[in-house]
Amino acid sequence: MAEENERRRGYRAGLGGELLAEFLGTFVLILLGCASVAVAVAGLPGSGRQSDAFGPANWLIIAWGWGLGVVFGVYVAGGVSGAHINPAVTLAFAVRRAFPWVKVVPYIVAQVVGAFLAAALVYATYGWAIDAFNAKAGLARPQSLDTFAIFATFPAKYFDGSWWGPLLDQIVGTAILVLLIFALTDTRNTAPSANLGPFLIGLAVTAIGLTFGPNAGYAINPARDFGPRLWTFIAGWGDIALPGTYQWFSAYFWIPIVGPLVGGVIGAVVYDLFIGQVVAARTAPAETGRVSGDG
Amino acid sequence: MAEENERRRGYRAGLGGELLAEFLGTFVLILLGCASVAVAVAGLPGSGRQSDAFGPANWLIIAWGWGLGVVFGVYVAGGVSGAHINPAVTLAFAVRRAFPWVKVVPYIVAQVVGAFLAAALVYATYGWAIDAFNAKAGLARPQSLDTFAIFATFPAKYFDGSWWGPLLDQIVGTAILVLLIFALTDTRNTAPSANLGPFLIGLAVTAIGLTFGPNAGYAINPARDFGPRLWTFIAGWGDIALPGTYQWFSAYFWIPIVGPLVGGVIGAVVYDLFIGQVVAARTAPAETGRVSGDG
Amino acid sequence: MAEENERRRGYRAGLGGELLAEFLGTFVLILLGCASVAVAVAGLPGSGRQSDAFGPANWLIIAWGWGLGVVFGVYVAGGVSGAHINPAVTLAFAVRRAFPWVKVVPYIVAQVVGAFLAAALVYATYGWAIDAFNAKAGLARPQSLDTFAIFATFPAKYFDGSWWGPLLDQIVGTAILVLLIFALTDTRNTAPSANLGPFLIGLAVTAIGLTFGPNAGYAINPARDFGPRLWTFIAGWGDIALPGTYQWFSAYFWIPIVGPLVGGVIGAVVYDLFIGQVVAARTAPAETGRVSGDG
Amino acid sequence: MAEENERRRGYRAGLGGELLAEFLGTFVLILLGCASVAVAVAGLPGSGRQSDAFGPANWLIIAWGWGLGVVFGVYVAGGVSGAHINPAVTLAFAVRRAFPWVKVVPYIVAQVVGAFLAAALVYATYGWAIDAFNAKAGLARPQSLDTFAIFATFPAKYFDGSWWGPLLDQIVGTAILVLLIFALTDTRNTAPSANLGPFLIGLAVTAIGLTFGPNAGYAINPARDFGPRLWTFIAGWGDIALPGTYQWFSAYFWIPIVGPLVGGVIGAVVYDLFIGQVVAARTAPAETGRVSGDG
Repeated sequence: MAEENERRRGYRAGLGGELLAEFLGTFVLILLGCASVAVAVAGLPGSGRQSDAFGPANWLIIAWGWGLGVVFGVYVAGGVSGAHINPAVTLAFAVRRAFPWVKVVPYIVAQVVGAFLAAALVYATYGWAIDAFNAKAGLARPQSLDTFAIFATFPAKYFDGSWWGPLLDQIVGTAILVLLIFALTDTRNTAPSANLGPFLIGLAVTAIGLTFGPNAGYAINPARDFGPRLWTFIAGWGDIALPGTYQWFSAYFWIPIVGPLVGGVIGAVVYDLFIGQVVAARTAPAETGRVSGDG
Repeated sequence: MAEENERRRGYRAGLGGELLAEFLGTFVLILLGCASVAVAVAGLPGSGRQSDAFGPANWLIIAWGWGLGVVFGVYVAGGVSGAHINPAVTLAFAVRRAFPWVKVVPYIVAQVVGAFLAAALVYATYGWAIDAFNAKAGLARPQSLDTFAIFATFPAKYFDGSWWGPLLDQIVGTAILVLLIFALTDTRNTAPSANLGPFLIGLAVTAIGLTFGPNAGYAINPARDFGPRLWTFIAGWGDIALPGTYQWFSAYFWIPIVGPLVGGVIGAVVYDLFIGQVVAARTAPAETGRVSGDG
Repeated sequence: MAEENERRRGYRAGLGGELLAEFLGTFVLILLGCASVAVAVAGLPGSGRQSDAFGPANWLIIAWGWGLGVVFGVYVAGGVSGAHINPAVTLAFAVRRAFPWVKVVPYIVAQVVGAFLAAALVYATYGWAIDAFNAKAGLARPQSLDTFAIFATFPAKYFDGSWWGPLLDQIVGTAILVLLIFALTDTRNTAPSANLGPFLIGLAVTAIGLTFGPNAGYAINPARDFGPRLWTFIAGWGDIALPGTYQWFSAYFWIPIVGPLVGGVIGAVVYDLFIGQVVAARTAPAETGRVSGDG
Repeated sequence: MAEENERRRGYRAGLGGELLAEFLGTFVLILLGCASVAVAVAGLPGSGRQSDAFGPANWLIIAWGWGLGVVFGVYVAGGVSGAHINPAVTLAFAVRRAFPWVKVVPYIVAQVVGAFLAAALVYATYGWAIDAFNAKAGLARPQSLDTFAIFATFPAKYFDGSWWGPLLDQIVGTAILVLLIFALTDTRNTAPSANLGPFLIGLAVTAIGLTFGPNAGYAINPARDFGPRLWTFIAGWGDIALPGTYQWFSAYFWIPIVGPLVGGVIGAVVYDLFIGQVVAARTAPAETGRVSGDG
């Protein structure tokens, strides 16, 4: 019994504890984020009226909902795992900040599982609202793109046939995100102290929602999109969930995976080229001739 | 006289002072929170029009109003009582953080009294607006669910006969709240310093309003609902106040009491299982084999 | 010349410098605050349409505009004068925090002058928008309550004949304000550090706007109302400015003066009775029997 | 090779690094800022409807978008170049804070290039939305003032023939901005610590958007307007971009350049006259008779 406890403690003190933290941090992010879309689409008394689910006042609810979801996801996991809660961040840290490659896949699995289960809990609490919305709109679940949007992302109509548009959007959005995370955690730069990094990182996601949100739903996080997408597939949204068949797409699901992974690395490289190497050069001793940690 | 002063000072330095703080903190919370709903429902010039009291822009007023109510309620009481200002938080701290059980009932009484009197003051200041709203809508007070909503909570129509829906919502919403409070005050994790914990805790309530608000009015605090509910009963809203008779409910009042108390403990346990034991394991000496303070 | 410089330096190091700071701090507050109402009423392209000047989305603009006005007014003046920028705060500090009575009138004069000149500058920049608004509405300036509202306050229609309603509103709103300022600056409590007090004090005003704004325009500051009111009187709004003749009032101007002065002292006393004496009792040595600094 | 590395390192440690930082900081500012207008004008599903691009809820998106753009632009560049990211700030620091004049032109060039390229990237990601908006409105690009507004600024219609109105607006808006930057970075005053200056400086821009936004689009930054304006000229908006021919203007482009440069210096001088010299007088030794650093 004491031995068993000791074994568990050892597990928690190592990678196991980090995975628990990534799981719970991503769970909190998705629980708050997806639920904010549920409020806009199906929760508020006037919702469903005039297809205004994504009008500007609702968009503020969504942008602050996801941003605060990140704030609190990072506060929950920060002290244990560094609170990536996003495979694109994990990959970027592996490529540019010496995060151990051996941990990359376990982190990503923990994130996706957390996102999947949080989507299930959002569904459990908003199932009544979703069904009422669809009944009012006269839609069966597999036709209800608005309620699918509570959980996962899809591109704006104006891309009209283009897959490059939403993919570029995901690359750009995630590049900004990771660039800002690198800036906000770089103590050689002006990283906020007093443990306020998580607050500012969440505000960065609010900012991205207000600026690169409508093009393709700002997944900017493969776990954020794929976990809940998997849930909606199981819960009856069918093809629009997986493989993501709608409009001009026979399969959309890969875009919010590939775009963020590529964009995150680009954002990391851009930060290091423009700022990381500069702060290193300004602090490193002249004789070294080597940029450590970021080059 | 000097003795009398000394006696009073001793009272204030002990539990008495904590109860005064819990009273005033909860009073501030309810004063700001309920008044923000009064603004949305009956205060603004366009209110009452098209039943838009809970449209998305008004929802932002309400979510920020309650969130900032918590920010300032916690700043007012924080240095004295720890600023629970919520029986669900008091209970969770007793169950998982060694808060003395003997203080639980006094704290809760102070919270409920503060909430009740704050509701009375909101009524004193918004009585004119409430009466004008009801006159315009042609409703007697006991039929006016919109003005009742200024003070206490009720479930969305789409739950349509279910008591489990709103109860689950209250459990989930309060579980998130307490989980985040535990994270934000855990100095072994990334708790904000510079006395900014109250700011972030209030933002957590803004977040919950934007994400788990419309299902059942996000009481997530038995004192926040029952105190003002008691006031509305006295002030003439009748059965819809107590026992909460409307729609499919003969008595609704117990849901925003039981749900938060259960949910708060669940949130505390989840935090400790996923994070609390991990941070303890990572900081405790290996030989202890015991998780102190959170296990 | 050197003597002259020295004389000026001495003036600036004393009360003179404090008055310059109170002047500029109040100027910044009113410049941003009144301009936010100008945006809502007459600035945005859709303004004037459907009398929506004070609809919920515009109300968010106004509440954040005034709140941020306070944030930055306090940052501007904080290090010099303590940044009262409000006669009600100055009076409350004199009554309960040993602020020298001899400075009270000079502070208030500096605040009113700053408010008056800031209103003039708002008028200079928004004069075109105001005239276009009135032309579109077919109103002469002395009939245009909407544009008067850019500068000073008036009560909601639903008070319908009552002077006690708006007066009570001003007492309550200012009592909350001063109570929160006392809490946020009390280092024996949880006052924010890292020089973030001004940020939180401004958020308190955002909160009051979202909760006690529509009753009577939340002056909660005699200088904020009277300075711009004086400007509008000079600039041609006539009787609705001074003495404030409209609806059931032959003279309204005194309410946003008397209400805040009374309310501020009440808020200060309430803070000290419930919290100030408690934190003093918890920190003071037992033998003192005297509450210093707040009693 | 090692020599080459050393040469590059030396470049980065000096002015070169500062220019890279100014470039990237301004790039981030414009990328987020312009994209927030793209969201309001052309991104959201309901956009284009009823010419509501600049209604109050969209205005909140724009004001927070630009404000957060500044927050993160300053966090990105702050530790290297001081994060002016605005020629008006650079000029004001040269005039009143001993910023080396020799760096002024290089800084401004880096800022304009960053702004230009960020506008190009906003165009790359929102080109589909822009074309769909114009197709729906039946406008050719050179007639589409709404989509031009995504990138650069123009005056409100109510100025109706006046060039002094928008110029005054730019002077006043930038004076406030620089006055607040001087306050927020003055450690003799109440400058926020914990590296939260960038957060508050960004909030100042949110505040200016909510208060001095609609008159002339609150460029308050010559690089912010001219860089994207140059891009739109190249991308086919023609005369409305450069020289800015519309309404009563044959050439508008100079107003958001001259106004901010003049206003910034005024704001700096006002801060120093009212506050800077006061804080200096209060801290300097009496015998000096000289105000250092701000006079």
